[in-house]
Amino acid sequence: MKCLILAAGSGSRLRPRAESKPLFPFLGVPLIERTIRSALAAGADDFVVVTGYGEQPLRAFLERLSRRLGVPITTVTNPRWREAGNGASVLAAEPLLDEPFLLLMADHLFDPGLARRLIERGAPEAGLLLAVDGDCHNPLVDANDVTRVRREGDRIEAIGKGLEWYDGYDTGIFLATPALFEALRQAEAQGDTSLSGGVRRLAAQGRAKALEVSGGFWCDLDDEAALRRAEKALLARLRGKAHDGPVSRWLNRPLSIRLSRWLVRLPVTPNQVSLFSFALSVVAALLFMLPGYPALAAGGVLAQLASIIDGCDGEIARLKFQQSDYGGWLDAVLDRYADALLLFGLTWHLLQQGGGGVALVAGFLAIVGSFMVSYTADKYDGLMRARGGARFRMGRDVRVFLIFLGAVLDQPLAVLAVIALVMNFEALRRLVVCRNA
Amino acid sequence: MKCLILAAGSGSRLRPRAESKPLFPFLGVPLIERTIRSALAAGADDFVVVTGYGEQPLRAFLERLSRRLGVPITTVTNPRWREAGNGASVLAAEPLLDEPFLLLMADHLFDPGLARRLIERGAPEAGLLLAVDGDCHNPLVDANDVTRVRREGDRIEAIGKGLEWYDGYDTGIFLATPALFEALRQAEAQGDTSLSGGVRRLAAQGRAKALEVSGGFWCDLDDEAALRRAEKALLARLRGKAHDGPVSRWLNRPLSIRLSRWLVRLPVTPNQVSLFSFALSVVAALLFMLPGYPALAAGGVLAQLASIIDGCDGEIARLKFQQSDYGGWLDAVLDRYADALLLFGLTWHLLQQGGGGVALVAGFLAIVGSFMVSYTADKYDGLMRARGGARFRMGRDVRVFLIFLGAVLDQPLAVLAVIALVMNFEALRRLVVCRNA
Repeated sequence: MKCLILAAGSGSRLRPRAESKPLFPFLGVPLIERTIRSALAAGADDFVVVTGYGEQPLRAFLERLSRRLGVPITTVTNPRWREAGNGASVLAAEPLLDEPFLLLMADHLFDPGLARRLIERGAPEAGLLLAVDGDCHNPLVDANDVTRVRREGDRIEAIGKGLEWYDGYDTGIFLATPALFEALRQAEAQGDTSLSGGVRRLAAQGRAKALEVSGGFWCDLDDEAALRRAEKALLARLRGKAHDGPVSRWLNRPLSIRLSRWLVRLPVTPNQVSLFSFALSVVAALLFMLPGYPALAAGGVLAQLASIIDGCDGEIARLKFQQSDYGGWLDAVLDRYADALLLFGLTWHLLQQGGGGVALVAGFLAIVGSFMVSYTADKYDGLMRARGGARFRMGRDVRVFLIFLGAVLDQPLAVLAVIALVMNFEALRRLVVCRNA
Repeated sequence: MKCLILAAGSGSRLRPRAESKPLFPFLGVPLIERTIRSALAAGADDFVVVTGYGEQPLRAFLERLSRRLGVPITTVTNPRWREAGNGASVLAAEPLLDEPFLLLMADHLFDPGLARRLIERGAPEAGLLLAVDGDCHNPLVDANDVTRVRREGDRIEAIGKGLEWYDGYDTGIFLATPALFEALRQAEAQGDTSLSGGVRRLAAQGRAKALEVSGGFWCDLDDEAALRRAEKALLARLRGKAHDGPVSRWLNRPLSIRLSRWLVRLPVTPNQVSLFSFALSVVAALLFMLPGYPALAAGGVLAQLASIIDGCDGEIARLKFQQSDYGGWLDAVLDRYADALLLFGLTWHLLQQGGGGVALVAGFLAIVGSFMVSYTADKYDGLMRARGGARFRMGRDVRVFLIFLGAVLDQPLAVLAVIALVMNFEALRRLVVCRNA
C-alpha cells in the first residue's frame, strides 16, 4: 500500500522552532517521522512525500529516514506550493500513483488503528474514503478551523470549512483512488485548488464515502494551542497501561510521565533509562547496607525514585517509536536484580543490628518469594488472560513502595516479613490455581 | 481416522502374568492401552478392537479406558479366534469399517511417528499400505519368527514367515482400505485365514504397497525374550533427551531410569515424584543448617539423591503417557525453590561457623545468579534453538552436583563462590548475546 503525505505548506502559524513544520520535533520526534511511522504501523510500505516550503532540509531528513527505517520514501516537489491550495500538492504526485493509496497530512497526529480501519474497509470504486470524526465535541479539535463534513448514510454530502450544517470533522486521513486526480483537475478548472474541492466533486457523483472513527485519536497541529493540547493528550495515553498497579497508577506514572516529557527531547534511549534506574537501585541497596537510620531512609527514597524512573523507559519507547522485545526483557531482568539487591540490603542492615536468624530467614524468603512470583508470572498471567481473572495486585510498584515505607519508617524487618509471606503464599496459590485449571 | 486393533489371540507363549496378553502391563501400562494411546498420538480417533481369548476382562478394561481417554472404543468378537488365523479377526470388524483405516496388532509396540507417516502417505486406491522395516539386522526383531516381506520398488511382491528371499520385515502397522476384506475372503476360500494371506492376494494384483520405516522404533512382544529386549529399548529411549547436562547424562539418568523402571509398576504419579524429590531437598537444606561436618555431608548426599529422583518424574510421565504442561511447570517451579533452599542452607552453615559478610554475599549472589539463569532461559534458549548455538552447560544437574561435592568435601564457601560467579556471569552474557541478536 502506497502512502501520499502532503508536506509542502509553510506552517506559518507555528513559531519557527524548526526548519519547517514537518521537521518540528513533537515529543522528540519530527512530525513527518511520526506520520510515516504511524502509516507504517497501519500497513503502508511505500511513501511519497510532496514538498514545497523548506524543501532542502526536509529532503535530506527523509533520505536518512528512508535508510533508517528501510522503506522507500520518494519526494516530489509541488512547484505551486506558495500560490495554490493543497489539491495542487496531490496533483504533483499523480505520476507516481496508479492504485488506491493512503493520503495523509504531515502535520496530523493519528492512531495507526484509524488508518488500518480505512485500509481494511477499502476505497469505493473510482472514489475515495475519508475517516470522519462524528464527535463534534472532540476537545482536541479547533471547531473554528477544522474542515466540516455532512453525511447521508456513509456518503459524504458536503465538505468545507464554512459548512453551517454538518455532523462530523474531516480527520485528514483518506484512502483515495487515482480518480481523485481527475476530480481535482475539474475543481481547479473552476478555480478551487483545495483537496476539499476535489473531494466535493467526487461527493457530487456519490463517490466520496465516510468511515466513522469517533473516539479514535487524531489531531491537527495548526498552532501553539493545538500543540499543547495534543502533547497533553499523547502523554495521557501513556497512563492507559492496563496492568499498572495502584502505586504506579497514582504515584509513579504521573511523575514519570512528566519526566518522560522532558527526556524525549534528549538523545537518551529507553535502555539507557533502564540501566540508569537499575544503577540507582544498586546505590539504594548500598545505602541500606550502611549502619544507622539516615542512610536507611535515604536508600528508601532513592529506591522509590528508581522505581518512578523505571516507568520512563517504556514511556519514552512508546513516544519515540523505540519499543522492542529486547528492551522489555532487559527491563524485566534488571528489575529482578534490583528487587533482590534491595531486599538483600535490608537484610544486611538488620543483621548488622543483630537481627540474627529471624532477619536472615525473612530476607531469604522475601528474595525467593519475589523471584517466584516473577518466575510464575508468564504461565499464571496467560491463564488469567484466557479466563478474564484479576491480576495479582502486589506487583513491583507495590513491593518497592513497601521497601521505601519500611526504610523511611525504620521497619525493615516488618517489610521483609510482609513481602516474604505475601510472595510465597502467592507462588503457592498459583501452583494450585494452575493445577485446577 | 478409524483404527482397527487385533486383540483376539491367547498369547500362549507369554507366561500368564495378566488375564490376557492385551492386558499385560508393560512398564506400568497394559499393552492394549499403549497401542491405543500410540495410535491416538498418530492421529486415529475412533477405535475398533477385535476380542476373543479372555474377552470379558478386556471389554471391561476398554470401557473404562474409553471414558478415561474420551474416545470411542467399540469391541467386536471374533467367534473363530481359536481355530482361524488373524485374517478372521479383521473380517469380524468388516461391518464397522467402510473407509481407509489404521490396522494394528495389540501386542506390538511402536513409535507413533511410524503410524503418522502411513496416514500422511495414504493408502493406495482399493489396496493397502504396510510399514516395512528394511533393516534386516534390527536387534529388536526375532528373525526366525517375524513375517518377511519382499519388495519391488514400493510394491509388495511377497509376504510370509517362510519367505527365503526377502528385504524387509512386516511391522504389523498397516493403513488398509475395505478392499482388504474381499481379499481376505478370497484367501480364506483357498484355505488361508491369515492376514498375510489377504495381503498376498492384494500384492498379486499390485495393490499392496510398502512404506520403508527402517530406523523407527517398533517391536513384536511374542515371548519373554522379546519383552526383555523391548523394555530395555524403551528405557534406553529415555536417555535421548537432548538437553541433559553431563552429570545427568553420565550419573543421574542411568540411575533414575533404573528407579523409574521399578516406579512405573506402582500407582505413583509424576507430580508426586516431583513433590517427593522437593521434600528430600528441603531435608537436605535443613541438614546443611545443622552445625558440624556429618550433617553437612549427609545433606550433600541427600541433595544429590533428590536430583537423581528428580529425573524420574519426566521418565514415568513418558513411560505411562502422563506428560502434561502443568507437570513440567510444577517441576521447574519446585526446582527453583529447591535450588534456593540448598544454597541458603550452605550459607547458613557458613554463617554459623563465623563466615561473616563474605559467606553472606557469596550465598546471596549464588541464589540470585541461579534464579537469573532460569529466569532468562526461555528467551535465551529460544534464541539458541533458532541459531543452533550450544546450550549452557551448567544446568541444574551440574549445580546440585557441585553442592554435593562442596558438602562432602567440606568446602561450602568455594561452591557458593563458583556458583555465584558462573551464574551471574552467564546472566550478564545472555543480556549481551540477546542484545546483539
